Amino acid sequence: MQDADPQDHDMPLRLDTRSPDFTERFRAFLGTKREVSADVAQAVAKIVEEVRHHGDAALISLSKTFDRVDLGALGIRVTDDEIAAAVEASDPATREALAFAHGRIRSHHQRQLPTSGRYVDAAGVELGHRWTAVDAVGLYVPGGTAAYPSSVLMNAVPAKVAGVKRLAMVVPAPDGVLNPLVLAAADLAGVDEVYRVGGAQAIAALAYGTETIAPVAKIVGPGNAYVAAAKRHVFGTVGIDMVAGPSEVLVIADGEQNPDWIAADLLAQAEHDTAAQSILMTDDAALAEAVIAAVERQLATLPRRDIAAKSWAEFGAVILLANLDEAPALANRLAPEHLEIMAANAEALADAIDHAGAIFLGAHTPEAIGDYVGGSNHVLPTARSARFSSGLGVLDFMKRTSILKCGPEQLRALGPAAIALGEAEGLSAHARSVAIRLNL
Amino acid sequence: MQDADPQDHDMPLRLDTRSPDFTERFRAFLGTKREVSADVAQAVAKIVEEVRHHGDAALISLSKTFDRVDLGALGIRVTDDEIAAAVEASDPATREALAFAHGRIRSHHQRQLPTSGRYVDAAGVELGHRWTAVDAVGLYVPGGTAAYPSSVLMNAVPAKVAGVKRLAMVVPAPDGVLNPLVLAAADLAGVDEVYRVGGAQAIAALAYGTETIAPVAKIVGPGNAYVAAAKRHVFGTVGIDMVAGPSEVLVIADGEQNPDWIAADLLAQAEHDTAAQSILMTDDAALAEAVIAAVERQLATLPRRDIAAKSWAEFGAVILLANLDEAPALANRLAPEHLEIMAANAEALADAIDHAGAIFLGAHTPEAIGDYVGGSNHVLPTARSARFSSGLGVLDFMKRTSILKCGPEQLRALGPAAIALGEAEGLSAHARSVAIRLNL
Repeated sequence: MQDADPQDHDMPLRLDTRSPDFTERFRAFLGTKREVSADVAQAVAKIVEEVRHHGDAALISLSKTFDRVDLGALGIRVTDDEIAAAVEASDPATREALAFAHGRIRSHHQRQLPTSGRYVDAAGVELGHRWTAVDAVGLYVPGGTAAYPSSVLMNAVPAKVAGVKRLAMVVPAPDGVLNPLVLAAADLAGVDEVYRVGGAQAIAALAYGTETIAPVAKIVGPGNAYVAAAKRHVFGTVGIDMVAGPSEVLVIADGEQNPDWIAADLLAQAEHDTAAQSILMTDDAALAEAVIAAVERQLATLPRRDIAAKSWAEFGAVILLANLDEAPALANRLAPEHLEIMAANAEALADAIDHAGAIFLGAHTPEAIGDYVGGSNHVLPTARSARFSSGLGVLDFMKRTSILKCGPEQLRALGPAAIALGEAEGLSAHARSVAIRLNL
Repeated sequence: MQDADPQDHDMPLRLDTRSPDFTERFRAFLGTKREVSADVAQAVAKIVEEVRHHGDAALISLSKTFDRVDLGALGIRVTDDEIAAAVEASDPATREALAFAHGRIRSHHQRQLPTSGRYVDAAGVELGHRWTAVDAVGLYVPGGTAAYPSSVLMNAVPAKVAGVKRLAMVVPAPDGVLNPLVLAAADLAGVDEVYRVGGAQAIAALAYGTETIAPVAKIVGPGNAYVAAAKRHVFGTVGIDMVAGPSEVLVIADGEQNPDWIAADLLAQAEHDTAAQSILMTDDAALAEAVIAAVERQLATLPRRDIAAKSWAEFGAVILLANLDEAPALANRLAPEHLEIMAANAEALADAIDHAGAIFLGAHTPEAIGDYVGGSNHVLPTARSARFSSGLGVLDFMKRTSILKCGPEQLRALGPAAIALGEAEGLSAHARSVAIRLNL
């Protein structure tokens, strides 16, 4: 039950399934903690209560402290004019790429719309369910360097496809600055309201409402430790999506693959965050060495090389297999957020892997395609949570009402068993509510 | 932003949409707190850490304190022989009713199994998703009076239909005592392992594992404040279902309905818990009075009359409408867990209601049918959470892996937009992972 420490060298971990200590070392690797989970629960509880009781005034005061911005002067809500100006100010080629991505994401997610239905069973009982959209959703967007317009699309599009009427976005404006592309993406995706507020205070405002921000029913979107703790805190009052952790990729490759391409993919993951994780599994020792060398080479010219190098050294791993058939079982234990399979038998390997957020098949599907323009969602379960959860989708913005209808005949057929169970559970009024209709 | 206090009289609240203060009073009613949410987060954090670091020894010591039972002597795991003996000891008629319920619940849930799929879009990109079951699930079952065999079925059946391989049930055994019907239901539903441990310690054991209890990937099932706080605490390490609150029913009835039947249904809800809530909406003042009188009459002979009377007096409500068309908008604001519609135009009213856990149509579908034998699930969103969540179902025990596949041609078509967005977001390694494949 001990977690392993991050690696204490400047190269990725190397494992070999043929080593006698592999099982033990792989288990330790699985337990590696990549995040210091600061205990901010109490600080967050205080912030939430402040917003709950003082509304806008608390938002203004907390934003002064945390974001050095005077929302009293600037306004909590970002105006339509500001959004239009941001769209105008953004690079047209980037706007075009965003529009292209938006179209593909929307088309794909439209296929996720569920169907409602009713049926009558052999006893004549009518059963069914109806899917409806969540009325109002809050979307948290991080500020600063992690403000990604692509993430705005990935969160907002499924909500709008689901039929969410009111989509309210919150984004911190440190020193008053907002990312124009984030606003352009929000505009494109049909976000209905934008507020320049972040942190736990933004989550509290969405959950409980303030004078300016009407409460929502569900909150989605990634954030720092304060945002995550605030979401956990308000869970139940509103729905929340998963709690996002640092991102990871696993590349499974056979010996025929291009080591430069693999190295580029590993670094695309590593550049996100020093806590990101890039893993290669291959049955070809020469490819493994070539990839490690290519990573070193490519790092030299990477703008975010400090972040990527630290992630690769601390959390990266190259796992050598006796043969690729060993990969699915290990991949299932890792349950990676992203899984690239670059191998002749990619489809067969994919079929054997149950726990992964998204699978990218073949050498011409780098994860970055899925991050931006593939059409599928890039909000995916991190930190082994693909064992129990799915990427974001349209269903996350809908809910199912079940429907049951009996006539007198069905009640006579089903009633006696219901009465027996009600009595057995000591719930006589349950039993009576059936018996009274059957004159029992 | 003030919550209303529970009602300070011994009769249900009466509201009338024609009163000038209705809007205000309905809003206050919506804000009524039915649960004292004790702040047990810190106590729970301590218990979780104890189990995490001391495993079985902590379970044994905590069970001695909280359940007055010596698991060191009795064993943490309930043996197959004990389960067989419990089945043997339980009433055959009740077992038969449980089997009848099990068959109906299973048939209905089998229809919820989702389909995986792949398609090729206009650009030649292959997209798809694959649904797979969660490998291992923990099921919490409360002890004492709230140990309901029907709830075991409602939680276990969808898990088993989903294909969960390992379903581990935990149930406290206060003074060593287990409910034989709970064990019989677990046996019927195919629960794989049963442990006699409850409270936050059971949740910690399921999340992190001990020598005896292997960890699971997701935990479901209702529990007290400690259990709920523990689920919130371990959320992220494992998946959890919703946090259950006290139960409620809304009955919408026209003037043609039988007041005794309605009263019986309101009391079936009220007998659960003093914090349960029963609400009647009708456009017929005479019916409203007749129901109130019938509740009083039926209370007199109800075994759980103290609980039901307290719930009815403190949280019950009768809302008189000018006409039934007013019901859907009010029902949507209440977002009731259970909604019975007993009216000539029940279907039309149901169609206009978006936020409800389950709808019971017509006079011959008392909620108790759905609680036991209708086939649909009785684990439903409480306390207005039907605004953002659904009843338990097969999808709660499955997750979706998305699949993306490009060939060289698709990469050429999609790549430039991905490169543009990667560069715009300052993620050059993302851009490079595409460009390197296009020789850009």
